Amino acid sequence: MAPKHEIPSPVVALAGGVGGAKLAAGLQATLPPGALTVIVNTGDDFEHWGLTICPDIDTVLYGLAGVNNPQTGWGRAGETWGVLTETERLGGEAWFRLGDKDLALHLLRNRWLNEGATLTETADRLRRALAVPSRILPMCNQPVRTLVHTDEGDLPFQDYFVRRRCEPTFRGLTFVGAGKATLSPEVAESLRAAAQIIICPSNPYLSVDPILAVPGLKETIQASAAPVVAVSPIVGGRALKGPAAKMMREMGYLEHLPLTIVEHYAGLLDGFILDQQDRAEQSRLPLPSLATDTIMTGLPSKQRLAAEVLQFGRSLMAG
Amino acid sequence: MAPKHEIPSPVVALAGGVGGAKLAAGLQATLPPGALTVIVNTGDDFEHWGLTICPDIDTVLYGLAGVNNPQTGWGRAGETWGVLTETERLGGEAWFRLGDKDLALHLLRNRWLNEGATLTETADRLRRALAVPSRILPMCNQPVRTLVHTDEGDLPFQDYFVRRRCEPTFRGLTFVGAGKATLSPEVAESLRAAAQIIICPSNPYLSVDPILAVPGLKETIQASAAPVVAVSPIVGGRALKGPAAKMMREMGYLEHLPLTIVEHYAGLLDGFILDQQDRAEQSRLPLPSLATDTIMTGLPSKQRLAAEVLQFGRSLMAG
Repeated sequence: MAPKHEIPSPVVALAGGVGGAKLAAGLQATLPPGALTVIVNTGDDFEHWGLTICPDIDTVLYGLAGVNNPQTGWGRAGETWGVLTETERLGGEAWFRLGDKDLALHLLRNRWLNEGATLTETADRLRRALAVPSRILPMCNQPVRTLVHTDEGDLPFQDYFVRRRCEPTFRGLTFVGAGKATLSPEVAESLRAAAQIIICPSNPYLSVDPILAVPGLKETIQASAAPVVAVSPIVGGRALKGPAAKMMREMGYLEHLPLTIVEHYAGLLDGFILDQQDRAEQSRLPLPSLATDTIMTGLPSKQRLAAEVLQFGRSLMAG
Repeated sequence: MAPKHEIPSPVVALAGGVGGAKLAAGLQATLPPGALTVIVNTGDDFEHWGLTICPDIDTVLYGLAGVNNPQTGWGRAGETWGVLTETERLGGEAWFRLGDKDLALHLLRNRWLNEGATLTETADRLRRALAVPSRILPMCNQPVRTLVHTDEGDLPFQDYFVRRRCEPTFRGLTFVGAGKATLSPEVAESLRAAAQIIICPSNPYLSVDPILAVPGLKETIQASAAPVVAVSPIVGGRALKGPAAKMMREMGYLEHLPLTIVEHYAGLLDGFILDQQDRAEQSRLPLPSLATDTIMTGLPSKQRLAAEVLQFGRSLMAG
């Protein structure tokens, strides 16, 4: 019997951008088609050139469709820059690198939103257009916008992250609009039906917390009988990608980063997967854990980690 | 003394798309920099992919900037199609051929409009970005939308013109919103200051009538002391470009097309320029006229016609 048949489905993954998209791609390649649902952060969404742009949804979408650019970590492979080049020539700002293929998707999504579609519906139409077998669910349909408090004042997330390259010192976050967000039927149903829930190796503060800030979402996970496993985004005391480690330093978390993340997810986790480079921290963790190689490069390493995560989750159910 | 210095300035031209853009380019090359103002039809404007698109303004802009595509008559030279190709792949409609360079301009204009700029301000920013010395004025700042009445029902202009290729039988037009439009200060001042007013060889019904439908605009032209000269869009009984001749046939105008156009502009013109192929009709015209070669291909032929139009206008002032 192939191992695939032993894996319980459905599986729900909570994901931000690059790290989340990588593990999601590994899970999709490991699970039967349609077994995976990815709930994606939309706190990074922003308005640019009059268009609503959803960076994390698109990173997950491109990753699961296999059309992502593995060099940059964002955007499309084989991208062209006809629009951006001309926009700069005409005097427009170009700090957010919108490629032509990427822009085509934004234009379609905005058209559908203007016609009254929900963000959830647009994500589903796009993943079908790109032949993605997994469901991709925005964490909610209402606009939630992550505001970054820094020593230079408050910055909308993309200003902090892309334009300012995370240079201002991080002080904290507000998820503007989260209080008015509601659990979408699709997110609620997927969590209730989940046989396993996985928190991807995404930034806990910037990518996962906005998802958990949607009223009722954290409680729905806590009410689930499915094992909840988080994969550490920290490798050897630093984030592989993005500003997580810098932010944690600026928040005063200088050591024992895996433990810090486990404590951050207090009351939510049944198990934790940390990188083998942080194995020395494993004994401090107050819950079942697995130390393994969490670095994902090509699809084989994504699949290997995905299989380990699923196997670890199953072992928690058995226990 | 060079002929340029004899030409009275400022000159105002009323223009639609391709034919208007060609004569405007000839006038710009003939007149001193800044002497030309082009008042452009916005009745063809429409919303596509959530963006307000201004086909005639852009055709004039591209023509005056020398970045137009002379093969197609619309759009940019050296255009690329990255966005449209991907939009089609993702399931979007693509009947309106939006190139990447073209789209860059639409995105910028929409951004500025969303920030509160008037259509007039956006046109001015764009012509400066493209180093166009002439002013390009939308006929008004309010939305006016040409609705085409056909044997198949009412069609928004771009649906009739681009998507349906003018195939439905033409019955008439309504300029929706024209009653609520107001003369912009820029249009009013340019007309009052004009030493010559030229109606370009654009479709009288589709391109010039919407301009004349802006309340007060026709009256401001009539109150001007400047000679008003129209250039016939008909050559040898047919329109060089676009649906004018077909529309006129469908309205029952089978003969004497130059006279029909002069009568259409009744009370507005001081002189009329018709093509030499229609010279037989010249004796029927109830106003001063000049028969010449009105076919414009490269810049030399545009400049030659422009110089003749300006010279003819001056002769009317002297008379």
